[in-house]
Amino acid sequence: MNDYNFDPKVRTVWWEDDGDGRAVVHMLDQSLLPQQVVYLHLTHEQQVAEAIAQLRVRGAPVIGVTAGFGMALAVTRFLAERDADRLETTPAEIEAHLAQVGQLLGQTRPTAVNLFWAIERMQRSTRQACQAGLSSQQLAEVLKAEAHQIAVEDVQACWQMGLHGAELIADGDTILTHCNAGALATTGIGTALAPVYMAAHTGKHVHVFVDETRPVLQGARLTAWELQQEGVPLTLITDNMAGYFMRQKRIQAIFVGADRIAANGDVANKIGTYSVAVLAHVHQIPLYVVAPCSTIDLALLSGEQIPIEQRKAEEVTTLYGTRIAPMDVAVANPAFDVTPHAYVTAIVTEKGIMRAPYTETLRARCMPSRQNKSE
Amino acid sequence: MNDYNFDPKVRTVWWEDDGDGRAVVHMLDQSLLPQQVVYLHLTHEQQVAEAIAQLRVRGAPVIGVTAGFGMALAVTRFLAERDADRLETTPAEIEAHLAQVGQLLGQTRPTAVNLFWAIERMQRSTRQACQAGLSSQQLAEVLKAEAHQIAVEDVQACWQMGLHGAELIADGDTILTHCNAGALATTGIGTALAPVYMAAHTGKHVHVFVDETRPVLQGARLTAWELQQEGVPLTLITDNMAGYFMRQKRIQAIFVGADRIAANGDVANKIGTYSVAVLAHVHQIPLYVVAPCSTIDLALLSGEQIPIEQRKAEEVTTLYGTRIAPMDVAVANPAFDVTPHAYVTAIVTEKGIMRAPYTETLRARCMPSRQNKSE
Repeated sequence: MNDYNFDPKVRTVWWEDDGDGRAVVHMLDQSLLPQQVVYLHLTHEQQVAEAIAQLRVRGAPVIGVTAGFGMALAVTRFLAERDADRLETTPAEIEAHLAQVGQLLGQTRPTAVNLFWAIERMQRSTRQACQAGLSSQQLAEVLKAEAHQIAVEDVQACWQMGLHGAELIADGDTILTHCNAGALATTGIGTALAPVYMAAHTGKHVHVFVDETRPVLQGARLTAWELQQEGVPLTLITDNMAGYFMRQKRIQAIFVGADRIAANGDVANKIGTYSVAVLAHVHQIPLYVVAPCSTIDLALLSGEQIPIEQRKAEEVTTLYGTRIAPMDVAVANPAFDVTPHAYVTAIVTEKGIMRAPYTETLRARCMPSRQNKSE
Repeated sequence: MNDYNFDPKVRTVWWEDDGDGRAVVHMLDQSLLPQQVVYLHLTHEQQVAEAIAQLRVRGAPVIGVTAGFGMALAVTRFLAERDADRLETTPAEIEAHLAQVGQLLGQTRPTAVNLFWAIERMQRSTRQACQAGLSSQQLAEVLKAEAHQIAVEDVQACWQMGLHGAELIADGDTILTHCNAGALATTGIGTALAPVYMAAHTGKHVHVFVDETRPVLQGARLTAWELQQEGVPLTLITDNMAGYFMRQKRIQAIFVGADRIAANGDVANKIGTYSVAVLAHVHQIPLYVVAPCSTIDLALLSGEQIPIEQRKAEEVTTLYGTRIAPMDVAVANPAFDVTPHAYVTAIVTEKGIMRAPYTETLRARCMPSRQNKSE
């Protein structure tokens, strides 16, 4: 244990073998927070896909981990069912099945690159295991190990982002954050909130202003709850108050996560991040984007190429089943926006703090883990 | 009837005599929109004060009208009660009672200057009537007439703001608005929305993007409903999407109302207006503030002197009784912010379109109606 190593109190997703050849993916149902703390027990990849699509688990890094678990679960379940029917299963049949599962999971959320990164990584492991002549059972074990490795790397990346990012926080600072890029978005201590936790852990006084983050209220429901659990003082505000508090010089820095970062440093993140970034720029407040290298998509030259998920109108017009807008109203609901790199003071990854020109710094520091992708 | 004269379909507040010496103030309960269309029947000034405080009626101009009706109602009720007890009432007793009522009404909303303007105007009429030796019954009639005159002037000011502001809208424009500064905020066709209605009425195609306006959702609940009633096409968005659509060049102009305007053109308006103004400035989109001269407070040199109402945490943490944030969370809830005049492209009043330097143009054009105040 390093001295910076502390456990977050919240746990998002984990794997459990029932000892009988079957497996369960446990998942905190974030769609019910903060009113209810409910854990789901998923035994079929279809359930995993639905959980991702319905935002029961959300946040780019943990979506990647969940996709890995989902694919490992798919293989374990597939083999168990075939065994029950006394059918032999070849590794090639598993590979074919996983191609379908990859498609199923890949259709859930179009913006988060970690999802595709994890799916591809699992499929690469499958190909390598098949080429190496492993048995079907061995292949299932390999995939389970690979999924766990994705989770372990996520936990470690969070520590590293926390260590690097904490250097940017001074004792007494008030930080603004948008959406949830905390422990709930990862299997570790978070991305954007990792520096906050690390700073607090090392004795710095930190206060967090939390944008409620309409329409899905990840800030009010998740970040506020999570910071309470971890004992970090916070003030909840509506999204449209951020500018007011910046003008009052109440905010010293902004920390946000990312769903995808292009090679030039343009950042796709939760809708509203762009507005926060423009306001930060005008008020000369630094905006830090904290995300693991797996979020960086060097294949995209700029943020203009990042697809933006359009979600359904009901997220805007109803809240917990209560209608808050007139019937038949037209609604726009882009789930993400793109912040041009000019508004990004630095990008913090597990590899360190990177600054402009991002086209050079991101490629130089984050290339290794991306090379894996194209293997 | 002028050719621009059309009736809005919504009616916010009006007076009715029951013919028996008693009066009723009718009020559309905006806190129940859009789910229910309920009209309140207020017979006591205490009910009027509560209705203003609880946002059953809101919007600076109609708050002024309501305060006028509230004071007229107070006198009518006071006299009727004394008559029932067979007590004589002197004009001086009415004046003393109205001083208390003015305090009661003045405590409901600290930011909207129209409230204080209307209270003072009613008290000035009272003083003048007392000095002129009017009887108590005559004084009651004078105050009723004065309250109606405030409403008539509001309706006329809306037409004029609509006519002037419509010049700033081109055929095919998409307008962004924040909060509700429409017919629901006045007894006429609105302030910020008056130019939209006038442009649409004269055949221009106009589309309105409506910020939902957290925490109280005046945009989603009121502006969206009102535009539907009036047949103007709209798209509802969350507040944090405004920057996204500005960057996409989907917005040609921004029209907002004001709760108070300082002599230098600084504008206090619903929280979030400042952020919209900064975003508009960065995207080189004009921001127009539309408000009657009664909203301009020439006694205040700058917006820094405008008191900002801090409202209760529950507006942020609960919606229609459903908790959307964890228990015991700290919340900030400033109801308004101040937009510096540098971000205001023009201020549209019933007197015309005024541009910087506002210290000169506002005083030159809006002084007459403010002079009344200091009489």
